[in-house]
Amino acid sequence: MSPKNEYITMLHGAGGTVMHDLIENYVVKYFGGASNAEVPLEAMDDAAVVGDIVLKSDSHVVKPIFFAGGDIGRLAVSGTVNDIAAVGAEPYALACGFILEEGLAIADFERILSSTREACKEANVSIVTGDTKVVEKGTLGGCVINMSGIGRRTTALDKNFVVVKKFRKAPTARWTLDSNLRAGDTIILSGTIGDHGLAILSAQEGLSFGSGIRSDVKPLNRLVQRMFKEVGGVVSIKDPTRGGLADALNEFSWKSKVGILLYEDRIPIREDVRIACEMLGLDPLEVGNEGKIILGVVKEKATDILKLLKATKEGKDARIIGKATAEFAGVAMQTVVGGKRIIARPVGDPIPRIC
Amino acid sequence: MSPKNEYITMLHGAGGTVMHDLIENYVVKYFGGASNAEVPLEAMDDAAVVGDIVLKSDSHVVKPIFFAGGDIGRLAVSGTVNDIAAVGAEPYALACGFILEEGLAIADFERILSSTREACKEANVSIVTGDTKVVEKGTLGGCVINMSGIGRRTTALDKNFVVVKKFRKAPTARWTLDSNLRAGDTIILSGTIGDHGLAILSAQEGLSFGSGIRSDVKPLNRLVQRMFKEVGGVVSIKDPTRGGLADALNEFSWKSKVGILLYEDRIPIREDVRIACEMLGLDPLEVGNEGKIILGVVKEKATDILKLLKATKEGKDARIIGKATAEFAGVAMQTVVGGKRIIARPVGDPIPRIC
Repeated sequence: MSPKNEYITMLHGAGGTVMHDLIENYVVKYFGGASNAEVPLEAMDDAAVVGDIVLKSDSHVVKPIFFAGGDIGRLAVSGTVNDIAAVGAEPYALACGFILEEGLAIADFERILSSTREACKEANVSIVTGDTKVVEKGTLGGCVINMSGIGRRTTALDKNFVVVKKFRKAPTARWTLDSNLRAGDTIILSGTIGDHGLAILSAQEGLSFGSGIRSDVKPLNRLVQRMFKEVGGVVSIKDPTRGGLADALNEFSWKSKVGILLYEDRIPIREDVRIACEMLGLDPLEVGNEGKIILGVVKEKATDILKLLKATKEGKDARIIGKATAEFAGVAMQTVVGGKRIIARPVGDPIPRIC
Repeated sequence: MSPKNEYITMLHGAGGTVMHDLIENYVVKYFGGASNAEVPLEAMDDAAVVGDIVLKSDSHVVKPIFFAGGDIGRLAVSGTVNDIAAVGAEPYALACGFILEEGLAIADFERILSSTREACKEANVSIVTGDTKVVEKGTLGGCVINMSGIGRRTTALDKNFVVVKKFRKAPTARWTLDSNLRAGDTIILSGTIGDHGLAILSAQEGLSFGSGIRSDVKPLNRLVQRMFKEVGGVVSIKDPTRGGLADALNEFSWKSKVGILLYEDRIPIREDVRIACEMLGLDPLEVGNEGKIILGVVKEKATDILKLLKATKEGKDARIIGKATAEFAGVAMQTVVGGKRIIARPVGDPIPRIC
C-alpha cells in the first residue's frame, strides 16, 4: 500500500505498536537528532532532558471530560507531572493550553479550572502561562487541554543515585530512564490496574459496573521524591497510561534489553475491575491507568521501597509484581494455572480516548 | 445573566476584549499567584519567566491547515518561538503535541512534519519531546498542534539592557516586557500588516484577492537577537497576532500606563491587502499577523534599529509608526485626512481561527 493511501485511525493514538510505529517512522524521522538534548525525542522516554531542564508536553482529549474520580483538568495536571516525575525530576512550572468548543458552558469551564487548580496544589506546582483557543462545536466533547511543564533535578534524585551506585557496578543514568533496568532488578507496581480505563469506558458507554469503579487519576511526583529521599535505589520509573501495564513493561524490556518476568497472582486488581474486564473481553494488562507507577528497583532496596509505598494513600496496594531477568527477552507472565504466557506489546489500548 | 447561562463563543478565542475578559476573570482568577514566577501568568505577557527559564505554550487550531505561505506546522513553530523572542529570550527546545483527526492522510501529516522541521531550522531550535493523540473525525480540519517551548537569557539581551540603561534613568525590566514602554519611546513595526489574516480568510472562503496575498508566518527570534547584539535599546516587543496591531498596541498602552500615538500614513500595508480589507469591511489594524513584531525602542536608537531591520528580508518593510506619549491614555492615530482617531481594543479578531 502506498503511503498516499494511508490515513490516521484511532489506533494511532492508543499507545501500543501502531502508535509507536507512527512515532518512530514519522515523528522521530523528522524531529529526531537534537544535539542539545541529554534525553532526546528518540529515547521516547516519558519526558526530555535538555541541559538542567526536564521538558514534557501532553495533550489531553479524554471523552467525556467529566468522569467518576476526576475530569480533564485533573487528568492534564497529573499526566504531565507524572511524566516529569517518571524521569526523576521535580515539576515546578506548567503551561496550560485550552482548546474550548463553542457552546461549552462557562460553568463547566469553571469546574475544570477549579479541579485543575486542586491538582496543582496536590502536586505543588504552578501554572505560569497558557493560551486559550476556541473551535466550532464538534466531537471534542467540550474541550481539550494541553499541559506542558518543566522539571528540575533535585538533591533527592542525587541521593537516590548514590544508593543505586552502591549496588551496581555498571554505569547507569542518573535520571530514572526506561533503559536503566538490569537483570536482577525488582519490579514494583504502586497499586491496582485498570481503574482509570474502566471508569472512562463506563462513562462513555453508560455502563455501570457497580458503584465502586473510579479513575485513579492523581499526581505522584511528591511520592517519587519521597522514595528517592527516604530509601533510594530506584533505577527506572514509568506511568502505565495508554496501553497499560503490557505496553509499559515492554518499553522497559526493549529499551533496557532485558527480560521481565511477572507473577500473575501478585498483580493488584480490584475484583469489580477484574470481573468487568472479563465480561467485556478486555485484558486488564492493556487498560490504561493515570495514578500508578511501575518502578524498577535494585533488589537490595525493594522491600524498603515497598514498605514506604504501602504506608502511603497513593501506594497502599503496592506489590512486587516481578523481576528483570537475563533468561529470556521480552515480557512473560508466570500464570496462576501454571506455565508462562508471553505478554506482547498491545496493538493499542482497547478503550479509546482515555487521556 | 447568571454565569450558568453563559457559553463559550468563537469570540472567546479571538484576541480582543472578550478573550481578555475570559482570561482575567477565569483563568487568572484560578491559576494566578504563582510565587516562583518573575513574569507570572497575571502579567499576561507573551511568555512566562520562571527562574532562568522562559516558558511558553500555544495551541494552534488554524483552519484550513494548509494555506498560501505556510501551514499549521510552520505556524506552530513560529508562534511559539516568536512569543519567547518577544520577552527577549532565545528559544532552544520545543515540545510538540499533535492532536490528529481520524482520516487525516498520512501524506498530509508528513507534509506538516516536514514544514515544521524546516521552520525549526530557520529558528535554530529543536523539538525534543512530544505527544500524539487521535480524535474522531470532526471539525478540526485534520489536526491541531500544541507547541510549547523553553527559552533562556542571552548575552545579547544583557547587551541590549546596557544600552537601555544608558538612555533611561527609571528602572526597567531586563526582559522586553509589554510594561516597559515610557513616554518618548519610538514604536517600530517590522513590516506590512494583515497578510496572514487575509491569506487565511481567502483559504477559508475560497476568495481570491489576486495572486499576491500570502501569510507572513515566520520565526523572528534570530532577528530579535541580532537587534539586541548589534544595536540595543529595545525595551518592549510584541507579536501582533490575534486582534492585530490594535490589540497589541492597546496591551502596550495599558500595561505601560502610557499613551501611544500612531501615524496612519506610516503604517505599512500591501495595496492588495488594503483593498481586500476595504471590500470586506475589515479594519486591517485588527487583522492578525504571524511574522511581524512591534518594538518599543529608546528614541536615541530608533534610527539604528530601523536601519538594521530594513537591511533584512524579514524587516525590509519596517517603519517607525508612532511614539509613546504622556499626553493622553490609550492608543490614538493621526489620520491622513487630519485629526485623531481612537484605536480601541477590538472585541476580537474579525477572522476566526487564524492561528
